Amino acid sequence: MSELDKTLLDTNSDTNRPITISVDAMGGDNAPECVFKAIKICLKEFKDIKFKIFGNRKKIDELLDSYRDIKEKCEIIHSEEEIADDEKPSVALRKGRRSSMYMAINAVKNGEADAIVSSGNTGALMAISKILLQTLPGIDRPAIGGIMPSEKDYCVMLDLGANIHCDAENLFEFAVMGSAFARIVLGKENPSVGLLNVGAERNKGHEVLRTALNLIEESDININLYGYVEGDDIHRGTVDVTVTDGFTGNVALKTAEGTSKLYTNILKRCVGKSLFGMLGSVIASPAFLKAKKIMNPKNYNGAMLLGLNGIVIKSHGSTDKYGFANAIKVAHKLVKQNINDQITREMISSGHVPPRNGFEEEVVE
Amino acid sequence: MSELDKTLLDTNSDTNRPITISVDAMGGDNAPECVFKAIKICLKEFKDIKFKIFGNRKKIDELLDSYRDIKEKCEIIHSEEEIADDEKPSVALRKGRRSSMYMAINAVKNGEADAIVSSGNTGALMAISKILLQTLPGIDRPAIGGIMPSEKDYCVMLDLGANIHCDAENLFEFAVMGSAFARIVLGKENPSVGLLNVGAERNKGHEVLRTALNLIEESDININLYGYVEGDDIHRGTVDVTVTDGFTGNVALKTAEGTSKLYTNILKRCVGKSLFGMLGSVIASPAFLKAKKIMNPKNYNGAMLLGLNGIVIKSHGSTDKYGFANAIKVAHKLVKQNINDQITREMISSGHVPPRNGFEEEVVE
Repeated sequence: MSELDKTLLDTNSDTNRPITISVDAMGGDNAPECVFKAIKICLKEFKDIKFKIFGNRKKIDELLDSYRDIKEKCEIIHSEEEIADDEKPSVALRKGRRSSMYMAINAVKNGEADAIVSSGNTGALMAISKILLQTLPGIDRPAIGGIMPSEKDYCVMLDLGANIHCDAENLFEFAVMGSAFARIVLGKENPSVGLLNVGAERNKGHEVLRTALNLIEESDININLYGYVEGDDIHRGTVDVTVTDGFTGNVALKTAEGTSKLYTNILKRCVGKSLFGMLGSVIASPAFLKAKKIMNPKNYNGAMLLGLNGIVIKSHGSTDKYGFANAIKVAHKLVKQNINDQITREMISSGHVPPRNGFEEEVVE
Repeated sequence: MSELDKTLLDTNSDTNRPITISVDAMGGDNAPECVFKAIKICLKEFKDIKFKIFGNRKKIDELLDSYRDIKEKCEIIHSEEEIADDEKPSVALRKGRRSSMYMAINAVKNGEADAIVSSGNTGALMAISKILLQTLPGIDRPAIGGIMPSEKDYCVMLDLGANIHCDAENLFEFAVMGSAFARIVLGKENPSVGLLNVGAERNKGHEVLRTALNLIEESDININLYGYVEGDDIHRGTVDVTVTDGFTGNVALKTAEGTSKLYTNILKRCVGKSLFGMLGSVIASPAFLKAKKIMNPKNYNGAMLLGLNGIVIKSHGSTDKYGFANAIKVAHKLVKQNINDQITREMISSGHVPPRNGFEEEVVE
C-alpha cells in the first residue's frame, strides 16, 4: 500500500483515543447557550470526548460561568466574526479566516479536531468545507445526508439540497455515501438503496436515473440496490437509503416537514373544538407527545455533509439542546466508525477511483 | 369575434341546462359499485345532473337492480374492454375504441357529455384524452392539478405527474391553468401562485424556474404571482397554487401522502401502548377521526387533467363512494363555471395564443 493510500485510509484508525469535536458556537437560533447545554448532555454519556469551541469569547465566557462542570473538556477559541443565517456563501467566504465557522472547519483540516458540528448557514458551511477539506477520492460532489422516520424505524435520504443538478455518476456516489452513513448511523449491516422516481418500472423518470440504475447494477460495488422508489416509499420504509438529486431531495424533505407540522396543528385544532376532545387529549397526552416527537424532524438532527475529506455535521438552525446533543452524538459515531474510510474503500473497490500500486489487491483481501 | 373564437369560448356557456357526466365505470379498485354509490350521493345534492355510464353491461345490470332510484338519471353504454391499472398507455391505446375509458372520453369529444370522471389508469387516461380531445389553444402540455390541505384551508398543486420534463413556457401555462382551477374549485377570487423551488431568493434553483418567473412577471397575464415557495410552504398555505414540473410534483404529493399515513400509524401505535393512551383516544375519537380525515389525501379526490379541450377528472384508484362523489362534484363545478373558457381567455389575453381578428380588444373590454 502506498503512503498516500495509507493516509487516505488510516486517519483516525485509533478508535480508542479521545475524540475532539470542533463546534461553531455562533450558528443557529439558540447559539451559543444551546451548545453548552448540549455538551453537558453529551458528557454524561461519553467520557472519551472533548471540545474545541469557536466563537466570541466575551459572549462565551459570560455563559461558561454557569457551566463550570464542562469547562475542563472545552477549549474556547476566540473568533472575531460570525456568519449570519441569511448570508450568501460568497459573502461568508470573504469573511475568511476570522469567522467561527471557518475556524471550526479549519481545526478538522489541521487534524486538531475529528469532526465539526455547526447549526449555522448550510450554504456557507458547504462552501467553506469544500475549500478547506476538499472531497474524498473519487467523489465529485459532496451531498447532504439526513435521517427521516419511517414505518420500520428510520431511513437515510440524500442529497437534501447541496446539488441542484446531478448526473448519474453523482447519484452513484450518493448511493455509496448513503450506504456507509446508514450502516453507521442506523446500524444496518447491508442497507437497501432506492433511487427516488415517479414509478417503479425501469422506463420511468429521467434519463439520469436510468443511467444511474445501470451504473450501480453493472459495477462491482457493494450496494444492496432495491431499484426505484416513489415519494411515499420514503416514510413506508421500503428502503434504508433514498438517493436523489438535491432539488428533489430538498423539496421532499421540506414537504414532509410541512405535512408533519400541519398534522400536529390540525390535530390540536380538532381536539380543541370539543370538551371530549380536550379531555381525551389530556388523558392520552403522553402518547400524543410521543407521536409528535417521532414525527418532528428536529429529533433527527445531525445531517452530514457527505463526501468531504473530514466529518462535517449540520445541525438544524432552530434546534434545541437535545437536537444539538444528537448532532454531536452522530459526529461521535461517525468518527468512531470512520465513515470516510468506509466510503473511500468502497469507491476504490468499485473502480471509480484509479487504483494505485498494489492497492486494489490489498482491499480485496 | 371570429367563428373559431366563438367556438373556443362559447361551448357550455348555457350554465342552466342539465349537465351530463360521462363515467368510466370500470376503473379503480372499487369499480363498478363505488360509481353507483357515488352517483346516489350526488343526485341528492344536484338535480341538474345526469350520467352516461360506460362499462361491462352484464356487471352493471346486476348491480343496478339495487340502485333503482338512480336508474332514470343513468344511461348505460356497454363496453367490451377494460383498461387495467398497471397497463402501459401504449397497450391501452391499442385497445382503442372498445374500452370503457376510451368510450367515456369520446362522449366528451362528441359533445354528448360535459365532463368525464375515471378512477382508472392515469397514464392511459392522459394518453387517450390527449389524442381524442387535444389541448386548448396555446397549451403545449396538459398537467394534472389537484388539491391538498393547508394551514389556511386548501391549496392547488400542479403538475402532479404528467410531465417529467418541463420548460419555462410549460410552467407559465401551469400557472394560468392552476389559477383558473383554484378560482373555481377553491372559490379564491385572486389566487396567489408560487413556483416550487429550494429557496426564496431570485437566484435559487434551476434556470427553468428563473425563466418562468421572468416570463410571468413580464407578461400581461392576470396571475397573482407570489414568487418562489419551498416544500414546507405547500402545507403552510403560503400560496393558493403551487406550480412545479411533474417529477417534483409527483414526489412532493406522494411524500406528503406517505408522511400523513405514517403520522396516523405512529399515533395509533403510541396510543395503543398505554391504558391512558387508549382511554384518551376513545374519548377524543371524533376529534382524531376528523384530523385524520382532513389529512387523508383521498378526501381531496378529483384531480383535473388541465389544458385539454374537455374536462377530464381523475379520481384516486382506491377511493370510496365519498371520494368518487367528490370527483363528480368537482366535475360539476368546473363545467358550471366553464374552466376551459377561463383558461383560453387568459391565454389569449397574455399574448401566448396568436390574436385573431378583433378578438384581443373584445377580451380586454
